[in-house]
Amino acid sequence: MQAEIIAVGTELLLGHTINTDAAHVARALAELGIDVFGSRVVGDNAERLEKALRDGLRENDMLVTTGGLGPTDDDLTRETVARVAGAPLEEHAESLARLKDYFGSRPMGANQRRQALLPRGCAVFANTVGTAPGCAVATPEGKLIIMLPGPPSELLPMLRECVMPFLARRQRGAICSHMVRTFGIGEGDGALLLADLTPKANPTVATYATDTEMYVRVTAKGGDAREAAALAAPVLADVRQRLGAYVYGVDVPHLQAVVVDALTRRGRTLATAESCTGGLLAAMITDVPGASAVFHAGVVTYANEAKTRLLGVPPALLARVGAVSPEVARHMAEGVRRRHGSDWGIGITGIAGPGGGTPEKPVGLVYIALSGADGTWLRVMRPTGRAMPRAWTRMRAAGHALDMLRRALQGLALTHCRFVA
Amino acid sequence: MQAEIIAVGTELLLGHTINTDAAHVARALAELGIDVFGSRVVGDNAERLEKALRDGLRENDMLVTTGGLGPTDDDLTRETVARVAGAPLEEHAESLARLKDYFGSRPMGANQRRQALLPRGCAVFANTVGTAPGCAVATPEGKLIIMLPGPPSELLPMLRECVMPFLARRQRGAICSHMVRTFGIGEGDGALLLADLTPKANPTVATYATDTEMYVRVTAKGGDAREAAALAAPVLADVRQRLGAYVYGVDVPHLQAVVVDALTRRGRTLATAESCTGGLLAAMITDVPGASAVFHAGVVTYANEAKTRLLGVPPALLARVGAVSPEVARHMAEGVRRRHGSDWGIGITGIAGPGGGTPEKPVGLVYIALSGADGTWLRVMRPTGRAMPRAWTRMRAAGHALDMLRRALQGLALTHCRFVA
Repeated sequence: MQAEIIAVGTELLLGHTINTDAAHVARALAELGIDVFGSRVVGDNAERLEKALRDGLRENDMLVTTGGLGPTDDDLTRETVARVAGAPLEEHAESLARLKDYFGSRPMGANQRRQALLPRGCAVFANTVGTAPGCAVATPEGKLIIMLPGPPSELLPMLRECVMPFLARRQRGAICSHMVRTFGIGEGDGALLLADLTPKANPTVATYATDTEMYVRVTAKGGDAREAAALAAPVLADVRQRLGAYVYGVDVPHLQAVVVDALTRRGRTLATAESCTGGLLAAMITDVPGASAVFHAGVVTYANEAKTRLLGVPPALLARVGAVSPEVARHMAEGVRRRHGSDWGIGITGIAGPGGGTPEKPVGLVYIALSGADGTWLRVMRPTGRAMPRAWTRMRAAGHALDMLRRALQGLALTHCRFVA
Repeated sequence: MQAEIIAVGTELLLGHTINTDAAHVARALAELGIDVFGSRVVGDNAERLEKALRDGLRENDMLVTTGGLGPTDDDLTRETVARVAGAPLEEHAESLARLKDYFGSRPMGANQRRQALLPRGCAVFANTVGTAPGCAVATPEGKLIIMLPGPPSELLPMLRECVMPFLARRQRGAICSHMVRTFGIGEGDGALLLADLTPKANPTVATYATDTEMYVRVTAKGGDAREAAALAAPVLADVRQRLGAYVYGVDVPHLQAVVVDALTRRGRTLATAESCTGGLLAAMITDVPGASAVFHAGVVTYANEAKTRLLGVPPALLARVGAVSPEVARHMAEGVRRRHGSDWGIGITGIAGPGGGTPEKPVGLVYIALSGADGTWLRVMRPTGRAMPRAWTRMRAAGHALDMLRRALQGLALTHCRFVA
């Protein structure tokens, strides 16, 4: 099975919008074992879109279009795909009812109503977020064209909830997919640990890396949902076991969500004291809905006198060892914990750059302290040897702090940390 | 002049990497008046890349490739483009010297050295960030293929500093481009104010929108740099004048950079007190290198008792009007300013959602206070009527706070604000 992705939209061609849809579609198809050998963008131009569709159908079994399904005159995908597939557009009653429901008491023009027109005989994918439904239509040659809406907020749920199950059924089966999220291990090391799993076809195991984390997706295809889940389970367990304590969660949105959830379940609270991360850690934690129940306060103490006034860091200590030191990180964590009566306190101090580095304390040096009822863990984050952007150093330091607390809450060892009772 | 963009890389096809390069290239070409009618992605496969290049050359005057120039075996763009252009690869002395300089005392393998091979007779674009140079090579038919490296950190400076001047010279001229950045006006309203300017060809005026800001790019082409600048200047002035106080800067990176710069120039300091934004404002400010000189401290006071302990907000007031109220925003701003002896204080309190809303205080309601020597300005940000994501509400509130301070520092009126002496 070979597919091509055709994104439609002049705003994509002009570079006003970045084509994230193609990446989402490509990943979904890869999980199903469908090869993507090409991806292109065409503007809102019926002639060029028709040519791209006809060219694509010559060389592929399946085309996936994104965009061009909206209510305006330059939304031409629906009409063009219908023409190429030889299937006339017909009003789809259920989609029209959904549209009417979406608009409620507001007036719905003829242009809006156009969105309920779909090629005869297609499989319809309901849009649970916006207005234009998606669909899959077969061509006379038995090939498949899938049309999806352009806004990622509409495309993503449709892809996961409708398109992937539809394609899995066509391949006579169901899929089960899990995302394993890790912190602290690089993609290179992670891929080595999983080297014998990644070439396998079912379940597939694929690694992804962001600037500071590595993810592993495990996807199984089975005759039905139960069989797919049963196939995925042992491989998922194997991946988890191999990656061990680096795994902070499976099918979770991000590290801070796991930390907030673990604090909430245990009825524990947190306070943070940040210097070089400048509020980033607090912002990440409070980005989680419901964080207010566990996160009582954070302070950003850039100036030494703020470290003294808000956290009780002794001026003599600051003068002796400097603000960027394990001792000050510890005082910050313990001070913010004590002053706010929280169960946990985090202190971060370092040099994010690009200025401010010295031979003894170079850019990228960060000290992170986690203070709890039993004592304080200290971690040092050293420069990588390359000049890393300020944003990377800050993000990485906040990630380390969250991961230290995550490990402590999950009863795991805090590797690379020193404990001070 | 008509161009197509060809991005090379299996990681793009699989969706592991999002194709941002195509958007950067498209915007640069649009500024030069070069039409982009197509954009595609091909994997690391010489045969398919060669087909894409030959197809592209049939229909376009110019192709721009991104990626596939690195040192590994699957980097095939250099060889394939050389073959299609009929220009044999030759070692480029200056690029080799740059490579040797990049590696310094570290060993440089044959694969790395390959990156100094370039098609005979090409125009070379030096890579000031990474290893692989870019280039432009003419085909026997007089068409042009431009090869650029894939990493955006390398592609972006090469595009601005080498490729755009090169193309402008080919079009017998130079370009001058400015980006006007605004806060507080939507793209719809902005586009209306500029409606008679945007259809013009030279200078071009184009609007861009992010979630919370609108930008306007003014680009002029002239016979030489001076003429281009002279053409751009009056239109830039016109755009600035039409957008008035919404303009926070021209050719600046972002709002927080303008605020930090304005504070620094005036020798003024800032402290922040955040509830619903949870440290985001502090994180944005401290993302600016050098912010430590003007940003002494920030506090994140989620809990009421933290508002009292860290900011002196009276418990009776919190009980009477609630934490989300103009009175508490004011107390937060004034309290943090007083306690830290800073010239300016900002307080933000609101309901970011998705939970926590009531009919009286719905999700999206945020109060922002800016306290200075003369008194305090208060702004209320009301729900939009649509369910906005938590991240949007937080980002927008932090933006409003920065913009209030920016206007105060620039001596402009604080629109939509109430003043309390």
